[in-house]
Amino acid sequence: MTSDGDSDAARMAHRQLIQRLREFADARDWEQFHSPKNLSMALIVEAAELVEHFQWVTEQKSLQLPAEKLAAVEQELADVFIYLVRIADRLGVDLVDAAWRKIEINERKYPAAEVRGKAGKSSDF
Amino acid sequence: MTSDGDSDAARMAHRQLIQRLREFADARDWEQFHSPKNLSMALIVEAAELVEHFQWVTEQKSLQLPAEKLAAVEQELADVFIYLVRIADRLGVDLVDAAWRKIEINERKYPAAEVRGKAGKSSDF
Amino acid sequence: MTSDGDSDAARMAHRQLIQRLREFADARDWEQFHSPKNLSMALIVEAAELVEHFQWVTEQKSLQLPAEKLAAVEQELADVFIYLVRIADRLGVDLVDAAWRKIEINERKYPAAEVRGKAGKSSDF
Amino acid sequence: MTSDGDSDAARMAHRQLIQRLREFADARDWEQFHSPKNLSMALIVEAAELVEHFQWVTEQKSLQLPAEKLAAVEQELADVFIYLVRIADRLGVDLVDAAWRKIEINERKYPAAEVRGKAGKSSDF
Repeated sequence: MTSDGDSDAARMAHRQLIQRLREFADARDWEQFHSPKNLSMALIVEAAELVEHFQWVTEQKSLQLPAEKLAAVEQELADVFIYLVRIADRLGVDLVDAAWRKIEINERKYPAAEVRGKAGKSSDF
Repeated sequence: MTSDGDSDAARMAHRQLIQRLREFADARDWEQFHSPKNLSMALIVEAAELVEHFQWVTEQKSLQLPAEKLAAVEQELADVFIYLVRIADRLGVDLVDAAWRKIEINERKYPAAEVRGKAGKSSDF
Repeated sequence: MTSDGDSDAARMAHRQLIQRLREFADARDWEQFHSPKNLSMALIVEAAELVEHFQWVTEQKSLQLPAEKLAAVEQELADVFIYLVRIADRLGVDLVDAAWRKIEINERKYPAAEVRGKAGKSSDF
Repeated sequence: MTSDGDSDAARMAHRQLIQRLREFADARDWEQFHSPKNLSMALIVEAAELVEHFQWVTEQKSLQLPAEKLAAVEQELADVFIYLVRIADRLGVDLVDAAWRKIEINERKYPAAEVRGKAGKSSDF
């Protein structure tokens, strides 16, 4: 995390977040429930709570959320992120490293010149 | 990101990832498809691809994935992370900051002494 | 199932579908994998394959799918239905009976006069 | 639906359920929100509410749910079924017919002799 105007909380490293979540689970003796299988379920439940905020909303409106709704959406994004960091940690996966490598794969899979303006069947961003 | 033995890729800041994903979408003229509504759908689709790897696997086995399976799971985690970073950026949400604030909320909601060893109905980690 | 012009396949009773799915699983010795926990995961994976067909498509276009796309969507709907019937059977739940009772609950929860034209926060249909 | 000891509610035909859901939406002027795109989102949200009941529960326990939990799960199954019937209706898809045809496809895709006892990568039941 760079120090270019980010909030103090944001400056905390990804690695510190991992550690904080380990402590949170250990303090509650919750590691027993945190198999990757279970965590994948918890993660998709949070992803659905995010989807729920948009299901009756138009695409246009989803770009202009009222403050109260945005605050709620922010918490769902946090929940998804928390479970994502936790499951990656439990599996020994470096999340940021994996993301950069996947972007490279996506670059080759969807060359800009070929796919420009066409979403087609692609579900890869 | 700290520099305590992480891979070069992992040292890249969260902010650089946000920028990289903007460039990726712009180069393909895909911003038109990236309403938060649509991105929430894309995110849950990737979360489901993660769940799919575990649906017939026992909790125990999910902790000991064979190398080939782990590599595939790693890509799904990356896909979820990529869409999460992208949708947060489109909504102007600081993802890491939101995560730390949510952990504080969870601390108060689930005091360690009260919930120790009990998952109960909680879906909050 | 009434006999008012439905196709021959459609006339088969819900109960026969339940039985067919039991036979399908037994013939493959797959009951061991069909805990309700696992089946809930399989169900949401199929629901996501349905969502995937619509993630980059506008609401308007989703009402006018080309024939090839509609055929693919039809298979995803079938997959969701198959897992839904199977998990209900494994839990001893009468799916159609539960649906009718839930509609009654929804009637009282969302009186037509009060909610007309407003989706609001409701995720109940 | 056959009349072999099912409850009165269960005897109501699938077609009557379709009609009831149309009336429910029309009375509330909710058809405007019921694009297949939106309904696919609503469906996966309900599927996730089902998953949530099982995320911290073992496979074994999921086969022996306490009465109170089973009643809640029953409502989630009903919610999924309601949205599934509704989206199929909006798309002009015969859900039961599609399920029977998909079972035939699955029979050929997973010959019993070949897949007996092995879940492998299959996500098709």
